[in-house]
Amino acid sequence: MTGHVSSTSQDRLAPPAFSFEVLSRSRQCYARCGRLTTPHGTVDTPVFMPVGTRASVKGLTPRQLTDVSVSMVLANTYHLLLRPGAEVVAELGGLHRFMGWDAPLLTDSGGFQVFSLSSLRRIDDDQVEFASHIDGQPVRLSAAKATQVQNALGADIIMAFDECVSLPCEPQRLRLAVERTLRWARQSRQAHRRSDQWMFAIVQGGTDRALREFCCDELINMDFPGYAIGGLSVGESPEAMIQTVAFTACRLPEARPRYLMGVGSPRDLVRAIEHGIDMFDCVMPTRNGRNACAFVREGTLKLRNEQYKRQDGPLDEQCDCYACRNFSRGYLRHLFLVNEMTGPILVSLHNLAFYQRLMAQARQAIRQDRFADWARPWRDYGRAPHAGDACRDH
Amino acid sequence: MTGHVSSTSQDRLAPPAFSFEVLSRSRQCYARCGRLTTPHGTVDTPVFMPVGTRASVKGLTPRQLTDVSVSMVLANTYHLLLRPGAEVVAELGGLHRFMGWDAPLLTDSGGFQVFSLSSLRRIDDDQVEFASHIDGQPVRLSAAKATQVQNALGADIIMAFDECVSLPCEPQRLRLAVERTLRWARQSRQAHRRSDQWMFAIVQGGTDRALREFCCDELINMDFPGYAIGGLSVGESPEAMIQTVAFTACRLPEARPRYLMGVGSPRDLVRAIEHGIDMFDCVMPTRNGRNACAFVREGTLKLRNEQYKRQDGPLDEQCDCYACRNFSRGYLRHLFLVNEMTGPILVSLHNLAFYQRLMAQARQAIRQDRFADWARPWRDYGRAPHAGDACRDH
Repeated sequence: MTGHVSSTSQDRLAPPAFSFEVLSRSRQCYARCGRLTTPHGTVDTPVFMPVGTRASVKGLTPRQLTDVSVSMVLANTYHLLLRPGAEVVAELGGLHRFMGWDAPLLTDSGGFQVFSLSSLRRIDDDQVEFASHIDGQPVRLSAAKATQVQNALGADIIMAFDECVSLPCEPQRLRLAVERTLRWARQSRQAHRRSDQWMFAIVQGGTDRALREFCCDELINMDFPGYAIGGLSVGESPEAMIQTVAFTACRLPEARPRYLMGVGSPRDLVRAIEHGIDMFDCVMPTRNGRNACAFVREGTLKLRNEQYKRQDGPLDEQCDCYACRNFSRGYLRHLFLVNEMTGPILVSLHNLAFYQRLMAQARQAIRQDRFADWARPWRDYGRAPHAGDACRDH
Repeated sequence: MTGHVSSTSQDRLAPPAFSFEVLSRSRQCYARCGRLTTPHGTVDTPVFMPVGTRASVKGLTPRQLTDVSVSMVLANTYHLLLRPGAEVVAELGGLHRFMGWDAPLLTDSGGFQVFSLSSLRRIDDDQVEFASHIDGQPVRLSAAKATQVQNALGADIIMAFDECVSLPCEPQRLRLAVERTLRWARQSRQAHRRSDQWMFAIVQGGTDRALREFCCDELINMDFPGYAIGGLSVGESPEAMIQTVAFTACRLPEARPRYLMGVGSPRDLVRAIEHGIDMFDCVMPTRNGRNACAFVREGTLKLRNEQYKRQDGPLDEQCDCYACRNFSRGYLRHLFLVNEMTGPILVSLHNLAFYQRLMAQARQAIRQDRFADWARPWRDYGRAPHAGDACRDH
């Protein structure tokens, strides 16, 4: 339990060391390499965080995550608020201890899920009332509540409550969401009670440059230790997405971490790193893994296809993950066809290894100042015709 | 891949070393400790084999099995015959390589599944015709075919084809099943083609002592290197089961391994060891694990119960498995309530650790000649009133 900060160590006089340093910058683009330090350890950026929605990355133990070099994990406030409830997590020692993850941890604000998963009942400038997606029970969430919940969960990094709209969206509605996001960022900050947690703010504004810049500037005035770009991958085109990342990221303070929420494919990650993003989370490697879709250097493999039935090579010759070192494509295909849990487990593990290696390679390319060269072939990743074998979301 | 014997090494002149030695005997009962040597390594007996029906122990990787001291695994011929087919497994390097398990491996004969899972279409003295439980397609299985399939799969120990009836059963029908089992044992032996596999025969005969003894004597005349007791845990009472084990086991050759198929609960295992059984397989630890039922020293815990919601201790204070060292009862309960795969995974892992520890303790008690004393408290295992908390099958 090295580096573990229990909830009893909330000493306001000696706040635990948080820091973010940019260590290398590409001279070819905005890509940068950094180091994020939290009370539960240090992570190299750019970093990809697997999603542990309900305090578990689906199918994988913390040890398996560590084995594929995962350094930081995200969990969802909305889901944990509903089950088992923040007070249960707190009583069982906080989120780190609850889920057996001693390394850095981030919780989102719940905003995205409230607007995407639940049936909204009422929303005003002060709070959101929604019907739980589990039992329809009414639940209220506000900036203060979302912050209290995240304080109780105890992740190293927590997020200000925000309003996330799906795109396309009426300009007026989008503007209202930005105004609420700003109000709620202020309220979240005010409600925040733990010095052993860093709170990041979330920039909203759809694909509207003026709105994004306005939101950036207002949040920067509030002086958060880090900033996220939210409200993307919600219906806009990939080009609009990356353009928005580009003009938003370069408006954010150079010295603070920049986190692109909910993105994305390997191609998206590489392009976003090019524009100076430091942190990512996405369900893609684990969700695709559960759906028998494996990421390999050449593209994606849909393992249910007949063509893999007798292939005795690993998913990826160059991968050193446990799945690739021990099992053939033919065996993994078999596991999916007979509905054995080990199929989803092993391919999720491999996909996370693939994502972590991608990030390690990106960091090395930045350090060696050859990022643009390294990134070039990734622009077409998943686009090449690969025997009609592309996975969903590609 | 130490000890790995590929299908190219079927050298009839230099058969790989198989052996079974009894190393210690209890002076209080028939319990004994031994060592079974196979081309893929050596296992200490009494040994418990987890069930990897479709070439995967549900939810667990081979590494996780090794972590909880599993030394030998069983896979099902019937299931692998249907999917992916024995020739696919052979083409992918044989069952060991296919499932990434380099240690000893046993396949059953398919007999039990043919009679319990499929819709039987026709049975005569030469073969069984059944409808696949997957797609209803007609499949035929005979002693020769079951042996060819097992030769292609390549497990270290394979089983002669047998007829297994459910109990209670008409005496005449039971007698017919024994006669067929004897005929098929002879035919299985004749069809067997690999010297790097040991073939065991299966004793049938329900709970009828005379029939069991007849079946034993006939099979012993055929001189198999090991003998299994089949046809139990198929509807008879626990008392009838253990009596049958008692009078059958003591009829079997002292120097050959004795394997009780498909049994059982911790209590069953301890009682069967007392009567001289060396090998076991059962789905109970993994099936119960998937159903949120954990084995601990005091009995079984149904983790979905509200009482575990806020318990921050491990499943079992005395267990050193990964699940017990890292997670609370409250967290494991949460995983089941929100349907996270890691719930079934972690409790299956713990239950296997529990079973393996039970066997290790039994072996040690035999070596120290205090088996009967050690076994006594296990007689009531799972029977004590444990807050109405007993799992299914207990």
